[in-house]
Amino acid sequence: MARVMTITLNSAYDLVGHLAHLTRGEVNQVDNLGLYPAGKGINVGKVLHDLGVKVALSGFLGQENQTGFQALFSRLHLTDLFHRVSGATRINVKLTEDNGVVTDLNFQGYHVNKQDWQKFVDFSLQQSQTFDVIAVCGSLPCGIHVDDFTAWLNQLNANNAKIVLDTSQQAFASGIRAKPWLVKPNRHELESWYGSSLTTQQQIIHAAKQIQKYGVPHVVVSMGKEGAIWLHENTVLYAQPPQDTHIVSTVGAGDTMVAGFIYGMLSGYAPEKTLASATALSTLAVSQSNVGISDLTLLNPILEKIKITFI
Amino acid sequence: MARVMTITLNSAYDLVGHLAHLTRGEVNQVDNLGLYPAGKGINVGKVLHDLGVKVALSGFLGQENQTGFQALFSRLHLTDLFHRVSGATRINVKLTEDNGVVTDLNFQGYHVNKQDWQKFVDFSLQQSQTFDVIAVCGSLPCGIHVDDFTAWLNQLNANNAKIVLDTSQQAFASGIRAKPWLVKPNRHELESWYGSSLTTQQQIIHAAKQIQKYGVPHVVVSMGKEGAIWLHENTVLYAQPPQDTHIVSTVGAGDTMVAGFIYGMLSGYAPEKTLASATALSTLAVSQSNVGISDLTLLNPILEKIKITFI
Repeated sequence: MARVMTITLNSAYDLVGHLAHLTRGEVNQVDNLGLYPAGKGINVGKVLHDLGVKVALSGFLGQENQTGFQALFSRLHLTDLFHRVSGATRINVKLTEDNGVVTDLNFQGYHVNKQDWQKFVDFSLQQSQTFDVIAVCGSLPCGIHVDDFTAWLNQLNANNAKIVLDTSQQAFASGIRAKPWLVKPNRHELESWYGSSLTTQQQIIHAAKQIQKYGVPHVVVSMGKEGAIWLHENTVLYAQPPQDTHIVSTVGAGDTMVAGFIYGMLSGYAPEKTLASATALSTLAVSQSNVGISDLTLLNPILEKIKITFI
Repeated sequence: MARVMTITLNSAYDLVGHLAHLTRGEVNQVDNLGLYPAGKGINVGKVLHDLGVKVALSGFLGQENQTGFQALFSRLHLTDLFHRVSGATRINVKLTEDNGVVTDLNFQGYHVNKQDWQKFVDFSLQQSQTFDVIAVCGSLPCGIHVDDFTAWLNQLNANNAKIVLDTSQQAFASGIRAKPWLVKPNRHELESWYGSSLTTQQQIIHAAKQIQKYGVPHVVVSMGKEGAIWLHENTVLYAQPPQDTHIVSTVGAGDTMVAGFIYGMLSGYAPEKTLASATALSTLAVSQSNVGISDLTLLNPILEKIKITFI
């Protein structure tokens, strides 16, 4: 029986390529580094799976190009609760040049109509009490209005679901009003919500406290190589990761931290241990090119270097 | 019973998008205009189908992302003789900006191994005598050496297959040695093969005659809005299309001309009529955004304006 359901409303493929130099107006030959099923909920699910947690994945997938997702689910034995909608799952093209310049081309994907959305809402509400945690991750696709999204979160909450919300922009601003159990903005998302840049730790904590006031029990702010801050009731914890990590790719680092928090909470870890292991997992994630934890033995040496402070 | 088999060795999806301005090093939001099964043999097949010719399609498709192709084959009732290989069919990203600048990003696709290739060769040789025409279209994927490609064309030819060859670069230069029944380079491909620019009609005819010398019965050179030249034995025909065509998209124009030639030949048209209708079909193709002939009644007014000259 799966303990966690992750929900990816706006699934995506990442089409990852490398080329010497991107030239506008020309035919560019690109080395294909892969076409990967992506989307934040899927990333969170992969990491939880690697940590030994049984995971079910839901949300939407476009009917036209689902083969890559099906192969992933089948390979990792992930429970596939995705709703299929007409059209294609969007493709995000990620191009890296020899000089390190990265260009992203984010294509629109499927449109979710009212019937699709209502079926999904009914299904997820029925399912909600069978999972310990429901992680709602990523952006909203065309067709889902932010008010409908928030109304759904409120219904999930009324069903006593423990909701982890990791989204941004309007969906974040509106979603926190539904009092999710845990949110994890990164610093940039927090700044965008708060409306000004946050340079000091005190400023970040102050902004995070404004989120707490909406009735959000756990607020985690991820800050890249500067670590993470976790607010719960009157406690503020800070985790500082080792500074000697060689960064290979930051893709999925935030998703890995979300998975680490869910793992720590489900394992009954003390707050310090939960924060430390989530931060260590995220640190391990940036040292590799793909999403997922292939070798857990790499974790302990990092974990020993994480500094936890009560602020 | 299908009369024509088109072969696309290096199938592709076209991911077509529009954006205000492509900016290197940034996250670009792209309006998605569609993810289309593409590849030259598939385009030729679609046009032949629209002209009422029964078509079978073969070549290779990547296992990982074949849904879009299957939907197309099923919708148009095209006979699917594609061989599946591990990996994904390549994706060619086509981006058009507000100012008309077009940027292409051509990703590599599947790799065809020796076993895949040998199975395909055996299959196509068995099948070759059941089709009136075999159209071999487009580039070679990774794994197929140009010498193996040419050896296969030679075997097809020894089986008395009527081969239409529409490819470029090494595959063209080597492929003409297998004496295909008809080749259709465009002017640029002919220049590339000939090794110098060809500005006058006389120069183009001279270069095309060098191809005839390899024992290629029909040499057609497509020249965009300047029309087409057809060499057969000692006859040289020139088709001039109307100059008032509003060009929407030149994607698939050459493939449409190839289909038009096959259609005319199969219909037993006189050479002038074959060339005129192939040129008219290609002219119609550039006046629309998609590949295929949705309304044949549009063809006659164009056909009346095509000028055919014996040179």
